[in-house]
Amino acid sequence: MLFKVEMDVNVPLDYDPEKFDELKKAEKARFQELQKAGTWRHIWRVVGQYSNVSIFDVTDNSELHDILMSLPLYPFMDVRVTALCRHPSSLYEDDR
Amino acid sequence: MLFKVEMDVNVPLDYDPEKFDELKKAEKARFQELQKAGTWRHIWRVVGQYSNVSIFDVTDNSELHDILMSLPLYPFMDVRVTALCRHPSSLYEDDR
Amino acid sequence: MLFKVEMDVNVPLDYDPEKFDELKKAEKARFQELQKAGTWRHIWRVVGQYSNVSIFDVTDNSELHDILMSLPLYPFMDVRVTALCRHPSSLYEDDR
Amino acid sequence: MLFKVEMDVNVPLDYDPEKFDELKKAEKARFQELQKAGTWRHIWRVVGQYSNVSIFDVTDNSELHDILMSLPLYPFMDVRVTALCRHPSSLYEDDR
Amino acid sequence: MLFKVEMDVNVPLDYDPEKFDELKKAEKARFQELQKAGTWRHIWRVVGQYSNVSIFDVTDNSELHDILMSLPLYPFMDVRVTALCRHPSSLYEDDR
Amino acid sequence: MLFKVEMDVNVPLDYDPEKFDELKKAEKARFQELQKAGTWRHIWRVVGQYSNVSIFDVTDNSELHDILMSLPLYPFMDVRVTALCRHPSSLYEDDR
Amino acid sequence: MLFKVEMDVNVPLDYDPEKFDELKKAEKARFQELQKAGTWRHIWRVVGQYSNVSIFDVTDNSELHDILMSLPLYPFMDVRVTALCRHPSSLYEDDR
Amino acid sequence: MLFKVEMDVNVPLDYDPEKFDELKKAEKARFQELQKAGTWRHIWRVVGQYSNVSIFDVTDNSELHDILMSLPLYPFMDVRVTALCRHPSSLYEDDR
Amino acid sequence: MLFKVEMDVNVPLDYDPEKFDELKKAEKARFQELQKAGTWRHIWRVVGQYSNVSIFDVTDNSELHDILMSLPLYPFMDVRVTALCRHPSSLYEDDR
Amino acid sequence: MLFKVEMDVNVPLDYDPEKFDELKKAEKARFQELQKAGTWRHIWRVVGQYSNVSIFDVTDNSELHDILMSLPLYPFMDVRVTALCRHPSSLYEDDR
Repeated sequence: MLFKVEMDVNVPLDYDPEKFDELKKAEKARFQELQKAGTWRHIWRVVGQYSNVSIFDVTDNSELHDILMSLPLYPFMDVRVTALCRHPSSLYEDDR
Repeated sequence: MLFKVEMDVNVPLDYDPEKFDELKKAEKARFQELQKAGTWRHIWRVVGQYSNVSIFDVTDNSELHDILMSLPLYPFMDVRVTALCRHPSSLYEDDR
Repeated sequence: MLFKVEMDVNVPLDYDPEKFDELKKAEKARFQELQKAGTWRHIWRVVGQYSNVSIFDVTDNSELHDILMSLPLYPFMDVRVTALCRHPSSLYEDDR
Repeated sequence: MLFKVEMDVNVPLDYDPEKFDELKKAEKARFQELQKAGTWRHIWRVVGQYSNVSIFDVTDNSELHDILMSLPLYPFMDVRVTALCRHPSSLYEDDR
Repeated sequence: MLFKVEMDVNVPLDYDPEKFDELKKAEKARFQELQKAGTWRHIWRVVGQYSNVSIFDVTDNSELHDILMSLPLYPFMDVRVTALCRHPSSLYEDDR
Repeated sequence: MLFKVEMDVNVPLDYDPEKFDELKKAEKARFQELQKAGTWRHIWRVVGQYSNVSIFDVTDNSELHDILMSLPLYPFMDVRVTALCRHPSSLYEDDR
Repeated sequence: MLFKVEMDVNVPLDYDPEKFDELKKAEKARFQELQKAGTWRHIWRVVGQYSNVSIFDVTDNSELHDILMSLPLYPFMDVRVTALCRHPSSLYEDDR
Repeated sequence: MLFKVEMDVNVPLDYDPEKFDELKKAEKARFQELQKAGTWRHIWRVVGQYSNVSIFDVTDNSELHDILMSLPLYPFMDVRVTALCRHPSSLYEDDR
Repeated sequence: MLFKVEMDVNVPLDYDPEKFDELKKAEKARFQELQKAGTWRHIWRVVGQYSNVSIFDVTDNSELHDILMSLPLYPFMDVRVTALCRHPSSLYEDDR
Repeated sequence: MLFKVEMDVNVPLDYDPEKFDELKKAEKARFQELQKAGTWRHIWRVVGQYSNVSIFDVTDNSELHDILMSLPLYPFMDVRVTALCRHPSSLYEDDR
């Protein structure tokens, strides 16, 4: 089941850069784990923004909620969630 | 080069349904042509809306503009375009 | 799986009242069918508006999309969909 | 008498986590008290947000105001209140 | 129980003026009935707008909903409803 | 001459509570003075908000400005001012 | 007593141009009458818009309301009203 | 050449009042200099706000930019600039 | 003197295409005349929109107003005007 | 390939002015390097704002993203990116 998730990251000007770098490393590791698993199916950078557009493939709403809330950078994020489904005009049977 | 394109389709209540069906067929044909070519890389339906979230892979801005403006349903659409690029945390070298 | 769906109904001033009454009857019948089935779990009227706040319980995103798009009054509606899940503080194991 | 109340919780990045945990415990206790009493009739988590959608059943506006203003986490919340009533199409006589 | 209700009236340029005058007369009659009863406790015109700010005193949410939906000019209105209660600093025991 | 004034009070989480309590006492005293004088004709609490809806009766714009700017809690407020006048449908000659 | 009034004029594409020209003439005549009287103290065109920024000098809110509602082009206008007063830094005693 | 400039002044609750008073004095002196010169042609206070509505008469865009950016209170301001011109209905040849 | 002007063109679905084509031809001719003169210094298409971003070089506000209001497609346009000036970091003395 | 980029710079009132001046110098140096290269094709100051309107000429989305994210003042900026292309009415073959 697919969701578009858009995340904007806001870092206060005076936030400790070392502490933030550690969070970023943790975020990257967690992201790659989910990418490998196919749960974080797509991620793209928005040009000129510290933001991404992502597509998640999850079993249900709760799984998505638990993943997002436990992201290391979640406390810095504005998050927008949109439920998606397969488009009827697609040539493919699945929701790729 | 990737762009997120979000399209909302608004059909006036009194629009001739046959005329609209023809336009929808033409839209579907054009979409599938672009999907096969890999230009319209992804399309998903937004739940509860006559809207889609799409990812286009084009050579440049002009190509995207020409594709969008010539869509059979374009006169019924609100369109939002966002430039994307590969996310640096991705496990993959390409922008999948 | 739960979703909050908010629907605003907009009827043009000059729309044929008989035609609209028929659509309203069909809408009511369809609603009650879904209410009985437990799919349309809750519905409340918003005070002073031709709008409702609803809670849907569906198997996945596609089921919700198909239900909403086929509502007889859908062409008159603005619809906002929000994915929900069980609140961790609830006394109950389910998502009531 | 029913109201939809939507609450977003905003915690400053540098807020003392222990102090916040105490407030969260107090909030949970107060919530469960009101849930048991049937006053806080429903609560759901919004996917990807530190937010909830709630339905309150109160005697009048003042009771709702007093409940909300005395929530332990109120100073961290954005709150939106919407008056609801029974939907005329419902199969049930009450406002469930 | 008090509610602030704000109403904006929008009349299409080509709406039949006689038909509208009849609706306005009906609206005025209904308003005065409710004003006499103390239900429509206050009404003020917003300067430069075909809009009013009103205070309703009703038994519950349903009563307010039924009153608003049956106003003769309701189909021309945008309506915003806000639940109010007595202010704790007031010199008076009631909610005047 | 009437104005609707809507005031939202925003208190920073780390503001000294004793200092704020003193300001609140001063605000209450000033409010009651103006309420007695009939200048602050009405005040209601907005349910679930640290906000009020007020009706002021003043001689001219300057009087209203001077009153608002000198409120002890003004530095914490967002204020919205709307000019009102008697509604032509009212049963009463004055603007009550 | 001064008010800033901002007016945007919206003419439907298919409105009868002769009828509109008559209304414009009536509007101009009424404006010049009020300009001569000093009531419509200033008017400026907003560059690139069929809009104006105006300053009215009236005795009270009602006078302003009556003037605006009876403007020949009022049914085509969006109007925003802002109460003004003399600025304390001004070199002049009056509110010029 | 005329511009409407609207300025909102936002002073942080904890800003040093003496330092701000000095800036206010400098702002007033600069304002009066420009008022005498006819450059800051009008200024009015917005009722209930720490805001003004001003009309500037400048030779070109650069002059206006340099004036605004060098105002002593500029770092505390939100500023909105709107280009104006003489209204064709005015009785006067100039843009008063 | 430079201004950024952004224009969105909205054509009603049922507007006569021949009539619109004539207006488009007139618009193009007028545009090219102004482009040759250096007044309409730049124009770019916004990708995916019937909109442009333009830079005008005019003597004063009135000239810009007169040009915009007399564009053949003006009645179909939403227009946003922003006053610009030379950027102080530019390598060049002029405002290119 | 062209993009309009709009940048608003927000400097906290209490930011160290010397540190900011160094960042501004670095920003200016980087800007001039990109201006010379033709990448930052245009830059204009928005009147009355610490903001600019810029036109970038880049090979692809990634190049633009990398340039923007590495600007010395980026952490202080709100940035809006809009993809542009040659306007079909232009007299010139290129996208000047």
